[in-house]
Amino acid sequence: MSRFIDKRLLPLEAYVPGEQPKPGEYIKLNTNEFPYPPAVGVEKAAVNAVGNMNLYSDLSCKALTESFCKVFGYGSKNVVFTNGSDEALYLSFLTFCGKECGAAYADITYGFYSVYADLCGIESSVIPLDNDLSINPCDYFGLNKTIVIANPNAPTGKTLTIEEVESILVNNPDNIVIIDEAYADFSGQTCVKLIDKYDNLVIIGTFSKSRGMAGARLGYLIACDELVSDIQKVKFSINPYNVNSITQAIGKAVLDNNDYYLKHVNEICQTRDSFSEDIKGLGFDVIPSKTNFIFAKHNKINGKDIASKLRERGILIRRFDKERINEYLRISIGTPEQMKKVYSALCDIIGG
Amino acid sequence: MSRFIDKRLLPLEAYVPGEQPKPGEYIKLNTNEFPYPPAVGVEKAAVNAVGNMNLYSDLSCKALTESFCKVFGYGSKNVVFTNGSDEALYLSFLTFCGKECGAAYADITYGFYSVYADLCGIESSVIPLDNDLSINPCDYFGLNKTIVIANPNAPTGKTLTIEEVESILVNNPDNIVIIDEAYADFSGQTCVKLIDKYDNLVIIGTFSKSRGMAGARLGYLIACDELVSDIQKVKFSINPYNVNSITQAIGKAVLDNNDYYLKHVNEICQTRDSFSEDIKGLGFDVIPSKTNFIFAKHNKINGKDIASKLRERGILIRRFDKERINEYLRISIGTPEQMKKVYSALCDIIGG
Repeated sequence: MSRFIDKRLLPLEAYVPGEQPKPGEYIKLNTNEFPYPPAVGVEKAAVNAVGNMNLYSDLSCKALTESFCKVFGYGSKNVVFTNGSDEALYLSFLTFCGKECGAAYADITYGFYSVYADLCGIESSVIPLDNDLSINPCDYFGLNKTIVIANPNAPTGKTLTIEEVESILVNNPDNIVIIDEAYADFSGQTCVKLIDKYDNLVIIGTFSKSRGMAGARLGYLIACDELVSDIQKVKFSINPYNVNSITQAIGKAVLDNNDYYLKHVNEICQTRDSFSEDIKGLGFDVIPSKTNFIFAKHNKINGKDIASKLRERGILIRRFDKERINEYLRISIGTPEQMKKVYSALCDIIGG
Repeated sequence: MSRFIDKRLLPLEAYVPGEQPKPGEYIKLNTNEFPYPPAVGVEKAAVNAVGNMNLYSDLSCKALTESFCKVFGYGSKNVVFTNGSDEALYLSFLTFCGKECGAAYADITYGFYSVYADLCGIESSVIPLDNDLSINPCDYFGLNKTIVIANPNAPTGKTLTIEEVESILVNNPDNIVIIDEAYADFSGQTCVKLIDKYDNLVIIGTFSKSRGMAGARLGYLIACDELVSDIQKVKFSINPYNVNSITQAIGKAVLDNNDYYLKHVNEICQTRDSFSEDIKGLGFDVIPSKTNFIFAKHNKINGKDIASKLRERGILIRRFDKERINEYLRISIGTPEQMKKVYSALCDIIGG
């Protein structure tokens, strides 16, 4: 740290992302990536965009927005695209969590919420999950703070129903409720339509998980016109060209091939459910998941040991050194072939 | 604006970027883009990266950094890559301009500096350029603020010498001096080597202007180890995956073809100098430029009229409705063929 850093930043602890080894080095099941190649048409769209990359990207993301609207049902006045959904979250914290307002989120959830709160100098209420690691909607009623909820939650994989989310919106009419739907495509439900009914709802999503664009970085925010115009103002005060033209072109091609992605999302959910059953047979408690990962702990062997033994066998998964969940493993769902190898490695580890 | 926006943001005025019409709609000389296609090898690098885009990008930008080091002479401990240089500027404002410190920059310079200061709630000292639109280094001595200088400056195209920059560094030993070198490749000089000597120097650069990557977004920051580690901490608290894997691959391919870009930079400088001479013959005062644009005003016809008549003829340039410079036109330097068309349109406008 230098003597020049803004003193306000001294206590800040940055987010620690999952390890990103070279492609092919491991069976990589630690950051919930999509295990299939891009749809046909994506490569060509990228090549065309590279040909024009000497020109600045389209500030309005027009072509991307049109394809987005066909899939999501919401268009230009209701969507902002971002450089991954982390940027959408950061913009939301900057825009809607003032010092006088603060933020509230669960004790066990996506680790970036607390980092953003600290960076922005916002006071946080950290709301403990229930004993079964569920979010209890009533805990969020009338908090008088900006509320941030991952739904489905990560790393637990549990969801609130749309009615439960609605109860939180109704009971916080004068505060923003941010619903982070990073994993919603795997849950079969989304709260997007509620933006017509609630002017305090912000939905955030990503193309990293269900649309195979983790490396290309594309996130989005959906809300009513007024909230979108607030976010646009802040985006245009930080980085107007935040989504590069190649990512815009790729995102459009991905949306234009929506069926391909839906088919694979379906496959991932099937793989997840059968893998969950398989490892229950090995003595794992598996939280029923609505995402592309499972959160599980073994009834005898400790989580740290299993993770390190999987690593020795060329399999990367994620574990959090955090109270209440340090025995759990978060295992991303890959292809059926990959999960067979994980199962076989776990048999080996548990058996031996 | 919604009732939920953080009240602090109410007076904020966002940056207004230059117009970005569809490719091919105009001879586009309004945002200082590179007028040549990507080097051979760039397309293939992009296609390879698209094939792996389901995986998160390399957090350390390892391959890109290695190629960068070969061209710039500075490696991993001294460079941070960003999603365009705007992000590098924003991170620098966040990290090094506290409320107690403030920022100082010229009255006529890149418009984003004041936006960042306002967004971050930082008090600014706005230092007027001299009458001839030069920066006077002495005006920046002992200010006790973080100093931000575009060198060459935009939109004037004028430069400080390395010795002049050094005098500012020496006379502000306890404050950060940010030198924004967006256009440095066209000036034939860079202050990068001064980072070995000054722990208060931050250099910012972009691949948008001299390396044809405006649409692909790649910026960088070069500084001593300690300052880089401060910036990394803040970057990892906002968006660790800020540079997507395709842009990383393209950036590497661009650097690996450095001669191609140097050759074109040379051509652009030659085109600039001959175009400047040509339009002096039409009655323009042209500030001698060290960039890929010129800043010029006509001795009779007003700037607004010329800009709108150029637009009618399919040529986009930039003009700023701002005191002291509202008669000036900022004209990006395109290919010789494009500049011939601009010259011919100007003959027509001035003549008629």
